[in-house]
This record gives sequence, C-alpha cells and structure tokens, in this order.
Amino acid sequence: MRIYGDSVSGNCLKVKWTADLRGLSYQWIETSVLNGETRAPDFLAMNPAGQVPLVRFDDGRCLAQSNAIMLAFAEGSDLIPTDGYSRAKMHEWLFWEQYSHEPYVAVARFQLRYLGKNPAELEPRIVERGKAALKLMDDTLRCRTFLASDVFSLADIALVAYTRVAPEGGFQLDGYPAVKRWIARVEQALGIDPAR
Amino acid sequence: MRIYGDSVSGNCLKVKWTADLRGLSYQWIETSVLNGETRAPDFLAMNPAGQVPLVRFDDGRCLAQSNAIMLAFAEGSDLIPTDGYSRAKMHEWLFWEQYSHEPYVAVARFQLRYLGKNPAELEPRIVERGKAALKLMDDTLRCRTFLASDVFSLADIALVAYTRVAPEGGFQLDGYPAVKRWIARVEQALGIDPAR
Repeated sequence: MRIYGDSVSGNCLKVKWTADLRGLSYQWIETSVLNGETRAPDFLAMNPAGQVPLVRFDDGRCLAQSNAIMLAFAEGSDLIPTDGYSRAKMHEWLFWEQYSHEPYVAVARFQLRYLGKNPAELEPRIVERGKAALKLMDDTLRCRTFLASDVFSLADIALVAYTRVAPEGGFQLDGYPAVKRWIARVEQALGIDPAR
Repeated sequence: MRIYGDSVSGNCLKVKWTADLRGLSYQWIETSVLNGETRAPDFLAMNPAGQVPLVRFDDGRCLAQSNAIMLAFAEGSDLIPTDGYSRAKMHEWLFWEQYSHEPYVAVARFQLRYLGKNPAELEPRIVERGKAALKLMDDTLRCRTFLASDVFSLADIALVAYTRVAPEGGFQLDGYPAVKRWIARVEQALGIDPAR
C-alpha cells in the first residue's frame, strides 16, 4: 500500500508510527500541503477532501482521516484495549483530539512555524483553547500512565503527535509536568527520538 | 444508565437515536448548554471537558464524545459494518464529521438560531467550509445509498444530525439533491419525523 503524507504534519506521523509499530509494509509518498500537492487534481481524485494522510491500498481503494487509518491499521492488536470501557475511552480521546486539541495546538504551530506569524498575531481563542486542552490532559495524566487506561493505546499515539511539538506553537510545556512525563513514555513506546 | 444531553444539540440527538435504535434503557437528563449547566461544578466533575452528550453508566463511570458513545452503544450490532473496509470508511466519516462538518454546519446554526446573529454576521470561512462539506456529501451520495457503503451505519446517524437542520444555519439544501434524498432515507431508518 501507499501512504500519502506530509512529514511535518502530526496527523501524518501518527499514521506512520502506527504502521511502523505494526510492522506493516508501505511506500511513503511525501505530499506537501504548503506546496498545494493535496489540491492537485490527481490527489483530489483519490481524496476529494484534499487532505493528508491518505492510504491507497493495493486494490486501489482509499482511506482518509488519520484516526480512522490508525484504527484500521491497529485492528486486532494490543494498541486497541480489549476491555470495552477502556476501548470506549480510547475512542473518546480520538474524537476529542480532532475537535478540542488539533484545531488549537496544531493550528497555532502551523501559523507560527509554517506561515511565519508571530505569537501576538494568533487569535486569543486558539491560545486559550490550546492551553485548556493541555491542562485537561495534564489533569488526566496526574493519576494515570496513559490516556485511555493504564495501558498504551492509539489515544496516546494520536495525542502525542502535536503535543510533543506544542512549544513550536507557543505552548510551553513546563506548566504541564504530567504531560511532559507522558510524552517521554510515549516516545519510548514509539521508539522515536525526543530531539526530533 | 443516564444520558446527559441538550435536546437542541445534534451531537446529543445522535446518541439518543442510537440508544433508541438499540433498545437501550436510559434516563435522559436534559442539560442546557446555553444556561451554563455543562459548566456547573457537578457536571464538570463528571466531564472536565464541560460538554454534552455525556453518559454515566450505572457503576458511575462516564463516557463523553458523541461519536465515541455511539460506537460503544452500537458495538456488535448491524450499525457497524462487518466488512473491514466499510467499517474503516464509517470511522473516516465519523472523524470527518467532527473536523470538517460540525464546526461549520452546526456552528452556523448555533450562531443564527441560538445566539440571534443574522446571516451577514457569520464568518465567511464558516459559510464556505459548510458549503464544501455539503458538496462533498452530495458528490458521495450521488452514487451511493448511504455514506460508508450501501448499508445504513453510524456514519449516517452522525452526519444526519446537523445536516437535516442545516437550513437553520443558512445552508439551503436545494443545491444538494442527493443529500436531500439521503436525509429522507436516514430519517425513515431512524423513525424520526421529518417535520421536526
């Protein structure tokens, strides 16, 4: 299969990390959002939503949405809790990530790092909600090893992608000590370099 | 179990419809967002994110996020396709709904109907993206009976909630004929009154 992704996008890295953890074989097709490659006709024919990540299976069928792709890749593995309530909480975090975390934490980073804005130009609403998201994670992780339960799951992969680079969006993590410790645990589980 | 929900919220109705289809027994606790009931201390103790819908199971454990609750309620039923690719597409639509549909189609409705704004006061970005979401659905539904596959699934319940009331947000549906026909099919499957 092919994974179309932009290496600077946390949404794309989530999918890559999950594929790697599962030992899946794939071809990574670097696809730049900033260069308009997700708006090219060939790409839109595969994904009319014009977004990466996108998976094209060998039979030609396509699948979009980072968290949906992760769920497909992880099916039947220990990345999805077998306990029903923990699995439901994992889903809860996956949806919360896309609604209450990514639109603030990732968008702030995109505007500062890739559009060259300075922090004073960020909408106050983005900054406030990004901080609220990080605080909610910190409160949760004070009494739990991982997000959905005490076991590592897709919820951690989904949330770590933009949380670990939150400082690039102006969100300093020193005020969120439980989040910092959790990032280190998740990076270790993923085998990724904290420096990157 | 108890379902805390606001009857004017599509996110809450999705959960109610799924519970009803599955024949689940629950107590509905009407919880008004506009009156600040989701920000009350007792509610925040159950859901620190301060959002409805929220389920409180009989053992006291809670679950948030409409689509996560729907997945939990529907587990093992024919609302979740057994075919792996159709199931993955259902997940794709569920995440797309929260990221690319609800923040525009539902937010426009909320601002017009519940905050009393007039259409000219809506952010142009909200209107443009709402229209793009409806067009993508229309393009999909021109050659398919339901969203994830030819079989009714949670994707349809999730998307119909705010799509059927999109005109209240200023989105006229006449330009999306396939969407209009699909709304009628889904309302019939849910057994809900088109007039409401």
